[in-house]
Amino acid sequence: MDLGLIPFTAKTFAARNDGTDVNYFRPQIEQMDGYTPGEQPQTGKFIKLNTNENPYPPSPAVPAAIMRAAESGLQRYPDPLATAFRLRAGEVLGVDPEWILCGNGSDDILTILTRALVGDGQWLRFPSPSYVLYQTLADLQGAAAEQVAFSADWQLTEAFYQGRDDLRLVLLPNPNSPSGTLIEADAILDLAQRVDCPVLIDEAYVDFSEQSCLPLVQQDPRIMVCRTLSKSYGLAGLRFGFLVAQPVMIDALRKVKDSYNCDALSIAGATAAIDDQAWFADNRQKILTTRSHLAGELRRLGYEVIDSSANFVWCYRHDQSVEQIYRRLKEQRVLIRYMNYPGWGEGLRISVGTDEQIAVCLQLLADVVVD
Amino acid sequence: MDLGLIPFTAKTFAARNDGTDVNYFRPQIEQMDGYTPGEQPQTGKFIKLNTNENPYPPSPAVPAAIMRAAESGLQRYPDPLATAFRLRAGEVLGVDPEWILCGNGSDDILTILTRALVGDGQWLRFPSPSYVLYQTLADLQGAAAEQVAFSADWQLTEAFYQGRDDLRLVLLPNPNSPSGTLIEADAILDLAQRVDCPVLIDEAYVDFSEQSCLPLVQQDPRIMVCRTLSKSYGLAGLRFGFLVAQPVMIDALRKVKDSYNCDALSIAGATAAIDDQAWFADNRQKILTTRSHLAGELRRLGYEVIDSSANFVWCYRHDQSVEQIYRRLKEQRVLIRYMNYPGWGEGLRISVGTDEQIAVCLQLLADVVVD
Repeated sequence: MDLGLIPFTAKTFAARNDGTDVNYFRPQIEQMDGYTPGEQPQTGKFIKLNTNENPYPPSPAVPAAIMRAAESGLQRYPDPLATAFRLRAGEVLGVDPEWILCGNGSDDILTILTRALVGDGQWLRFPSPSYVLYQTLADLQGAAAEQVAFSADWQLTEAFYQGRDDLRLVLLPNPNSPSGTLIEADAILDLAQRVDCPVLIDEAYVDFSEQSCLPLVQQDPRIMVCRTLSKSYGLAGLRFGFLVAQPVMIDALRKVKDSYNCDALSIAGATAAIDDQAWFADNRQKILTTRSHLAGELRRLGYEVIDSSANFVWCYRHDQSVEQIYRRLKEQRVLIRYMNYPGWGEGLRISVGTDEQIAVCLQLLADVVVD
Repeated sequence: MDLGLIPFTAKTFAARNDGTDVNYFRPQIEQMDGYTPGEQPQTGKFIKLNTNENPYPPSPAVPAAIMRAAESGLQRYPDPLATAFRLRAGEVLGVDPEWILCGNGSDDILTILTRALVGDGQWLRFPSPSYVLYQTLADLQGAAAEQVAFSADWQLTEAFYQGRDDLRLVLLPNPNSPSGTLIEADAILDLAQRVDCPVLIDEAYVDFSEQSCLPLVQQDPRIMVCRTLSKSYGLAGLRFGFLVAQPVMIDALRKVKDSYNCDALSIAGATAAIDDQAWFADNRQKILTTRSHLAGELRRLGYEVIDSSANFVWCYRHDQSVEQIYRRLKEQRVLIRYMNYPGWGEGLRISVGTDEQIAVCLQLLADVVVD
């Protein structure tokens, strides 16, 4: 079929009939910056310790399940509700499958929630510093974002608990990024009572901690928990996350998600991943051991290191800015995350890699400090 | 890690502090029905001719590429812009890769567009009968949907061309579903000029027609074209679609999409699929041949059949309702789509299956009519 196309060039045309430039977008879209994910170099060889990926490949059961799915009929639409995953995850987590909503990564879950709950001009609250994407989600909804600063020891302050008119959703990453710190379950029950609106506990990193808020979902329908397979199951490339919430919430959220938001391959891979709890336990132990070593060595090098419940550590120095340190490591092809939060300060977030990767990183950090 | 979970039950709790039931959702979410996709039986053996899937498995290059991707590191985040696909698709279609935005199915593209362009209380226009999802997308945005009826011969009426205040997006499936009919390119250029707002040409079925609006994107930045690999590449299970639009549009839309909206497997599979144009041409020819046979036989059985430019045919009878016919076929485990559009009438949409599937379907239809 020859459609007689001529190759497109990058030339664009003024759009409106009156000759003015294109400006069709909603004002909040025009004004916003858009979320910039951590650097993902597509070429060249880097030690990547900047986006909290798992350094190890996933369970071998995952590619095997993906191959079976790829060979058995991609021409059909996938199961809209990813039931195979929900059944297995329900068994593993002790959750009724009707309490689970699956998404194309937990970012998809966050998008579904904000679209369902937060309208134009309404309020969405989250702590600061935390996940930068939350601001983007508020912007997209035309909502007002209320960032409430953590206390100096990364706990919630009184302002975070206060109800307010038109507050429609509270987002709480737990463990938090970049700090890797936890808020206790009791405080979260109290929070939901006092704000009296839905509270999402973003447990992207929870598998590296010793506490989960999953049991709270049963105690209060305002409390919802989202998880991802990107970190603790080594599947950032697969895009699979899920929400646990009471059925009255799940039912309404199903109306908001794209019909076929999870593809047949990711459903198969995610189901195989959560099924392999032996791999999960072994991988988790390796990450925790390396994390402990990394934190200890950083302290030895004079860094202030926050105790981490995640697969990264947050650290900074009292004697110098760490921005230059980030740059020097990048020159040596080791990527870590430099963050500078206005009014809060700066630091380095270093993902827990393999022992070999962390050894290289630590050696460079030692050299830089000596300089 | 034992989190001490007790199994969840389906019991739920009243939520608000005042003891009333949960009602946290935006009013439009509460009120809307949600989009119901075509029946997707997950169990049992059906001949499935109801959701316009390709009856043939995709190019063998697709599972091969997926296996390579699955074995080479799913622990890393995928390329946020699916550049490998954009480069190859750009060559195949004669389009600069910077004019392409990839999505998790073309439903994701439609979601991105409505979120970027249509705000609360603004208008979104589409023809009727067409894709039922468009109404859902308007509902989710809190937008007003203006459904303009097609003329009796499935052409656009004068009302479709008229500009109106706060009209922010026009959606035009071309070829249309359920009719399989086309609007000519000249009419679409005229439409974009007159409505003076973005116009999305949804070309989900275009590969089964003899015309595409892709060249129009160069002529008017209001005109955008979206495509899917679900139908003509046999990849409904993979979730991959893309938009072609001028860079000034693409740049803003990138801010709205989820950062990693396409996973590593679907990017690899989609790139392999569009690369295999020999498979594509052969599959297309098979579908067109079977479609022609199906339409001819339906006419022989006394059906009114609309000439189709898609991988399905739309038909109805003057002498009887076809709802009972749909039910009888379903009892025999052949699924076709029965549609009844208020104020328009009813009909059957039959996807083009394999010759064997269509032979079974036609035999049942012959038996039912004889009854």
